[in-house]
Amino acid sequence: MSENNPAFVLQSVKHVTFEDRPVPPLRDPEHDVRVRVEQTGICGSDVHYWQRGRIGDFVLKSPIVLGHESAGTIDEVGSKVKNVKVGDRVAIEPGVACRRCEQCRSGMYNLCEDTIFAATPPWDGTLQKYYIVAADYTYPLPAHMTMEAGALVEPVAVAVQICKVAGLRGGQTVLVFGCGPIGVLCQAVAKAYGASRVVGVDLSEARAKFARDFAADDVHVVDTSQKSDGDPVEAARALGEKIVREYGLGQGADVVLECTGAEPCIQAGVFAAKKGGTFVQAGMGKENVVFPITTACIRALTIKGSIRYQTGCYPEAVQLVASGKVNPGKLITHRFKFEEALEAFEVVRKAQEDTLKVVIQGVQG
Amino acid sequence: MSENNPAFVLQSVKHVTFEDRPVPPLRDPEHDVRVRVEQTGICGSDVHYWQRGRIGDFVLKSPIVLGHESAGTIDEVGSKVKNVKVGDRVAIEPGVACRRCEQCRSGMYNLCEDTIFAATPPWDGTLQKYYIVAADYTYPLPAHMTMEAGALVEPVAVAVQICKVAGLRGGQTVLVFGCGPIGVLCQAVAKAYGASRVVGVDLSEARAKFARDFAADDVHVVDTSQKSDGDPVEAARALGEKIVREYGLGQGADVVLECTGAEPCIQAGVFAAKKGGTFVQAGMGKENVVFPITTACIRALTIKGSIRYQTGCYPEAVQLVASGKVNPGKLITHRFKFEEALEAFEVVRKAQEDTLKVVIQGVQG
Amino acid sequence: MSENNPAFVLQSVKHVTFEDRPVPPLRDPEHDVRVRVEQTGICGSDVHYWQRGRIGDFVLKSPIVLGHESAGTIDEVGSKVKNVKVGDRVAIEPGVACRRCEQCRSGMYNLCEDTIFAATPPWDGTLQKYYIVAADYTYPLPAHMTMEAGALVEPVAVAVQICKVAGLRGGQTVLVFGCGPIGVLCQAVAKAYGASRVVGVDLSEARAKFARDFAADDVHVVDTSQKSDGDPVEAARALGEKIVREYGLGQGADVVLECTGAEPCIQAGVFAAKKGGTFVQAGMGKENVVFPITTACIRALTIKGSIRYQTGCYPEAVQLVASGKVNPGKLITHRFKFEEALEAFEVVRKAQEDTLKVVIQGVQG
Amino acid sequence: MSENNPAFVLQSVKHVTFEDRPVPPLRDPEHDVRVRVEQTGICGSDVHYWQRGRIGDFVLKSPIVLGHESAGTIDEVGSKVKNVKVGDRVAIEPGVACRRCEQCRSGMYNLCEDTIFAATPPWDGTLQKYYIVAADYTYPLPAHMTMEAGALVEPVAVAVQICKVAGLRGGQTVLVFGCGPIGVLCQAVAKAYGASRVVGVDLSEARAKFARDFAADDVHVVDTSQKSDGDPVEAARALGEKIVREYGLGQGADVVLECTGAEPCIQAGVFAAKKGGTFVQAGMGKENVVFPITTACIRALTIKGSIRYQTGCYPEAVQLVASGKVNPGKLITHRFKFEEALEAFEVVRKAQEDTLKVVIQGVQG
Repeated sequence: MSENNPAFVLQSVKHVTFEDRPVPPLRDPEHDVRVRVEQTGICGSDVHYWQRGRIGDFVLKSPIVLGHESAGTIDEVGSKVKNVKVGDRVAIEPGVACRRCEQCRSGMYNLCEDTIFAATPPWDGTLQKYYIVAADYTYPLPAHMTMEAGALVEPVAVAVQICKVAGLRGGQTVLVFGCGPIGVLCQAVAKAYGASRVVGVDLSEARAKFARDFAADDVHVVDTSQKSDGDPVEAARALGEKIVREYGLGQGADVVLECTGAEPCIQAGVFAAKKGGTFVQAGMGKENVVFPITTACIRALTIKGSIRYQTGCYPEAVQLVASGKVNPGKLITHRFKFEEALEAFEVVRKAQEDTLKVVIQGVQG
Repeated sequence: MSENNPAFVLQSVKHVTFEDRPVPPLRDPEHDVRVRVEQTGICGSDVHYWQRGRIGDFVLKSPIVLGHESAGTIDEVGSKVKNVKVGDRVAIEPGVACRRCEQCRSGMYNLCEDTIFAATPPWDGTLQKYYIVAADYTYPLPAHMTMEAGALVEPVAVAVQICKVAGLRGGQTVLVFGCGPIGVLCQAVAKAYGASRVVGVDLSEARAKFARDFAADDVHVVDTSQKSDGDPVEAARALGEKIVREYGLGQGADVVLECTGAEPCIQAGVFAAKKGGTFVQAGMGKENVVFPITTACIRALTIKGSIRYQTGCYPEAVQLVASGKVNPGKLITHRFKFEEALEAFEVVRKAQEDTLKVVIQGVQG
Repeated sequence: MSENNPAFVLQSVKHVTFEDRPVPPLRDPEHDVRVRVEQTGICGSDVHYWQRGRIGDFVLKSPIVLGHESAGTIDEVGSKVKNVKVGDRVAIEPGVACRRCEQCRSGMYNLCEDTIFAATPPWDGTLQKYYIVAADYTYPLPAHMTMEAGALVEPVAVAVQICKVAGLRGGQTVLVFGCGPIGVLCQAVAKAYGASRVVGVDLSEARAKFARDFAADDVHVVDTSQKSDGDPVEAARALGEKIVREYGLGQGADVVLECTGAEPCIQAGVFAAKKGGTFVQAGMGKENVVFPITTACIRALTIKGSIRYQTGCYPEAVQLVASGKVNPGKLITHRFKFEEALEAFEVVRKAQEDTLKVVIQGVQG
Repeated sequence: MSENNPAFVLQSVKHVTFEDRPVPPLRDPEHDVRVRVEQTGICGSDVHYWQRGRIGDFVLKSPIVLGHESAGTIDEVGSKVKNVKVGDRVAIEPGVACRRCEQCRSGMYNLCEDTIFAATPPWDGTLQKYYIVAADYTYPLPAHMTMEAGALVEPVAVAVQICKVAGLRGGQTVLVFGCGPIGVLCQAVAKAYGASRVVGVDLSEARAKFARDFAADDVHVVDTSQKSDGDPVEAARALGEKIVREYGLGQGADVVLECTGAEPCIQAGVFAAKKGGTFVQAGMGKENVVFPITTACIRALTIKGSIRYQTGCYPEAVQLVASGKVNPGKLITHRFKFEEALEAFEVVRKAQEDTLKVVIQGVQG
C-alpha cells in the first residue's frame, strides 16, 4: 500500500472494498488532530451496518469507512491543541458531539443528535491509515499500555458509562445479564468499583467460564430462548427469583445491568431487582418487549437507559486498564492484519461461542 | 348508634355491614393516639376490596373495617406523645411502617413489608368512630382547614410523593396521563412546585374541563381504548409525538407522570418524554404491558415507580392545602353520612364521568 | 454618534471614555451572531472593575468595553445558526465557555477557565452598539417582554442557578441573607418554585420593605455590622436561632441562600440551617471568614458555592419573567441613555439605600 | 468476678471503677437482644468523657459504663426477633435511634436527637459483661471473622459513612487528611470502592508508613502545627497546591476527606479540592476555624459534614472486613483484659505515635 491513506470501505450492504484515499487534512485546523490508527476492535454494530446497512434511523446511503474502536499515534495537531502532541499514543473516543445543543451544554453529550460518530452513516470510521478527530476526544495512553488495550478502551468506556448510569456504589450487589464483551466488562468495572457481589447470566457455558475467570463472582447459565408451555413472564419471574435465591443476592440485586436486549432477560431482571433498586437497560434487541410494569412500580424501581459515554468515561476507562483493574486484552480471541479485515468481519459475523473480541492491526509501513 | 364504636365492615366479597365494636384501646400505650374520625374519602382500592376481595398479595380472609383517607380529632394520647394533644384536629397517614427493616431505616418506609395499612387485609380501616394510630402518623391541621380537606390530604400526599419520585423541579414541563383525582392533584402539585407547563391527558371531556379549571395549563382529550388497525405501539408513538408537538412541550416533556395504568398511555408517555427525561409510573393497570424499551434506552430515560408516600409527604400536603395552593375540596362531588356508607361506595363503584371524590362523614353523636 | 459602533470603554482604573469603534464582524462566521444592544443593566462587578481594575485573578491590563447584562436585537447570524434569526429580540448570556475542557463537557461550564465573559479583562462587554456572541448564548424573548426585562434576565439567571445549586424543591423553607437584587430575585425564584416559606434578612428597612412587596413572606431587619462586646460567632448563633424561632422556620431552614458575603450572615446562616439542610454561598465578601465548622459537621449540612450559571438557567429565567412569576422590572430604580453611562455608573457606585437596579439604553439611531 | 454483670464505670471526671451490676433484662421484650460482650475497641471519645466529662451538649451527670465499639455473642433474644438467634456472633451498632422523628423516618437516623448511644451520657456503654440493644442494631459476623475484627466494624462503619457522604464513586481521586484509625480506614474504604488514587496527609512519619502499607497510594508528611511568619491561610493554600502538584492529583482531588479537625488541614483541603469537587468534614477540633469561603464559592465545591452512620454502613462494613478488602485488625497495637481496662485507657490517653487501636477483651468466665 502507498504512502496515502488505505481504508476499509463499506460501499453498500454486504459489499466492502479496500480503497486508497487521500491523507485527510484537519477539519478544524485549530482543535483537531490526525491519528495514525494502530489497532481497531470490531463491534457488533460494525457488522450490523455491513450486513443490514442500517441501525435505527442511521441508514447507509453512501460509502463509509468502517471501524470505531481504535487507538493510534498522534500524527499532526491543530494550532491550539494542548492535551496531546505528535507522537503521543492515544485512545480515540469515536463520537464528537456538537458542543452547542442543550444536551451537549448540560453534560449529556451522548444524547447529542449532531454527533459525528465514526462508522455511523454518513460518517467515516477508523479502519483507515489516518483518522481526523477533535483533540479533546483523544486520551493519552501510558507507555506500558498496548495499542490493543488502547483500542479496547472503547468497550471499557461503554461499561463505565453503564455503571455510572446505574449510580453504582461500593458495597452493592450487581446482577449482569450477558457475558459478551460488554457484559464481562461491566462485571469487571463493577468489581473494580467495590461491588460486594457480581453475578452474571449467560446461555453459554463457555462464556460463563470466561466471565468467572475474568471478574464475576459467579455466573448462572440458562437458555432463556427455550420456549416453555406456560406464561413466559411467569417463567422469567421464576428465573429472576431463582437467581436471587441461589446466588446470594439477599432481597434482590441492588443493581441489575441488562446487556443482552433479550426479552426474557429484561423481564427476569426486573423480578431480580431489590425493592428500591436500579435496573439499567444497555443491551439492544427488540424495539418493544412485554414488561412487568406493575412489579417495577410496586417495588419503586429506578429503570434507566444507557447509551454511549459521557465526560469522564474514557479517562476512567484508560485508568482502569492502565492500573490493571480491568484487562480487556484477555477478551481478544482473534487478531488480523489490516489486509485481512474482511476475514475479521466474517469471524464476528459468525459469532461462535469462543469469539469474544476481534482486533485488526492498522496499516503497516 | 350507641356510644361505642360503630364501624363499616367488609365481611366478605361484596358483603358489607355496620357493626358496633368496642372502643379500641391504644395498642402502644406510649406512642399511639386514638382519633375520633370526622371525614373519610373513598378510594378506588376500597371499592376494589369490596368487589374483588384482593389486591395483589393482599387477600381478604377475615372481616376488615373499610376506609383509609381520613381526618379527625385526637381523643386520647399515649404517655410519651408530644406532637399532638387531645382535641387537636389531624390528618391520619394510614400506613404505619415497622420502623426496623432496612427499608424503614433507610427512609423508604413506603416499601416496608410489615406496614399496618388501614383497610388492607388483615388490618382494619378508618370507617369507624375511633381509629388507633401511631402519633407520628397524625398531622395537625390549621384551624382554617376543614375536616373534608383534612381527609383529602391523603391523595394530595400521593401526588406529592409522585412529584418527589420524579425529582420535579421548578421550570420543568410536565405531562400527566389521567385526570382522575390523583392525576389532577399531580397537576396541581406540579404547578405549585413551579412547573413551567403542565399538560394533562384524559379520555373524558368532562374530566378534562375540570382539570383545566383546577390546575392544568391544557388537557388533551383522546380515547386510547379505541382499537385501531395498525400497530398499537406505533399509534402510541404517534399520540405521544402529537401531544409534544401540539401542546408546546418542545423536545418532549421533562417529566411524564403516568396516573392511569393504561397500556396505550404508558407507551405514549415514553414517546412523549424528552431525551434524558423522567417517567414515573403511578397508575396500576395490567401486570405486564408492551413497552418500548429501545426508545427508553436510546433516550436515556429514567423510569421510576411511585407507591404510597415517604417522610415529608403528609406535612407538605397539609401545607399545600393550608396555603390554598392545592384545593382538594373542589374534587368532592358527593357527600354522605356515615349511615349512608354503602350508597357512597355504590357511587364510586359506578364511576360516572361526573364523579371525582366521594366523602363520608364520621359517626355523629 | 456615527453609524459605526459607539462603545463605553474602561481605559484604566477610574477612567472611562466613549469611543467609536468599527462594527465588529462575527468571530466564528458559522455559529456567531451580532446583536444590536438595546438595554444593559449595571452590576456591582462593572463598578468594581471601574474603581479597582481587578476582581480576583482578572486584572485590567488594556482597555475593555464595560457591561454584561444585556438584551438586544439580532443584527446578523452565522451560516449555521438555527436558533435565532435577524430581527429576533434576545437576552444575551454573557459568558461563552470553551466547550472543550472537562468542566464544559460535563455540564459545569460555569467553571470553565477559558470562558469569554463580557466586561471581564481582557474581554469587551456589551455597552457598545453591537456585540458579537455565540448564537446558542442568545435566547429569544417573547413579544410581550420588554428589552429592559430582557437585560435583567441575567440576574434572574444568577438566582435560578443559586436555587439549582441548592437543589431547591417545592415545599421547602428558604432563608435568604441579603435583599439586594440577587437576594430578592432568589426569594422570588424560591417562591415561584414552591418554597413553603421564604424569609429574607437585610440591614436596610427600605430594602426589607421592597423584598416583602416583591416576593418574601417576611424579612428580618438587623444590622450585623454593629460590633458587640461578646464573641461574634455566639452573636451570630443567637441571630440565627432567633430568626428560626421568630419567623416560623421550625427546626431550621431547609435551605439557606447567602447573598451578602458578610461574615456575620454566613455564620448566622449555618446556625439557622436545619440538620441535614443545605447552605449555598453566593455572595462574595472577605476571602476568609471565621466559620462554625463543628456545627456544620454535627448537623451534617451540605454547603455549596454558586457561581454564574449553567445550561438551563437562561431559558428558565426567560420563562419565569415571561410568565410573570418573577418581575425584575420592578427592581429598576434608575434609567439612563447610552450617553449618560457615566452618570449611571456613579449612581451604582454611591449605592444609596433606594438604588436597586440601574439600566442604560442602547445606542439610538 | 461473679456470674453477674461486671462493668467498667465512669463515676465522675477522671474517676473510673469496676462495679458488679445486675444482669440487665431486655428493655423491649419483643425487639431487644442481650449480647455477651467479647471485644471492645477504645475510641478517643471514650477517653474524652473520662478526662473531661463532656462532649458538646453531652455532659456526664451520673455514672455511665464506658465503651461503644463492641462485638459479642447473642445471649437472649426478644419474642419477635428474627435477624439473629442465641449464640450468633455479632457486631453491635452502638446508637439506637428513636425511629419516630423526622430524621429517623427519612433515613437520617444519625441526626436523631433521641438516640440511645452507648457511653454517651446518660446512657451506659458496652464495657460490661452484658449489653442490651435493639436486635436490628446487631449484625451477624461470618464464622471466619474474629471478635476483634467485629469490634472494629464500628470505626469501619464510620469510614463507610464518610465515603457515602462524599458520594464517593469508583475512578475518583481522594485526599485524606489524617492517618489515625478513621483516616486510614477511609483510605482503605476508598481504595476498596475503586478510587483511582488515594493520598493521605499526616504529621507523623510512623503513621504515614503504616498508612502506605495499609491502603494509601502515597502519604505526605507535614507538621501543620508549626507556626510560620506569614498568613496561615496562604500557607495552607501553598500546602494544598503542593500536595495536588506533587502527588498526581491533576486539577485537584475529586474528593477531600478531612479526618483531623485541625484548622490548617481544613484550609489546605479546600485549596486541594478540584473545581466542582467534594470536601467532607469528619474530624472534630476547634468549634470555629478561619475558612476560605470565597475559594469554596468560586470553585463551586460541595462541603458536607459526616457524623456517625446511617442504614447500610454496618452491613457494608461487615462485608468489607469479611471479604478481606479492609483489615482493621492490623490497626490493633495493644490488647488488654477486661480487668486491665484502666491501663488500656491510659494507653489511648497518652496517644503515642505508635498507638493506633487498643482493644479490651470481654469479661471471661
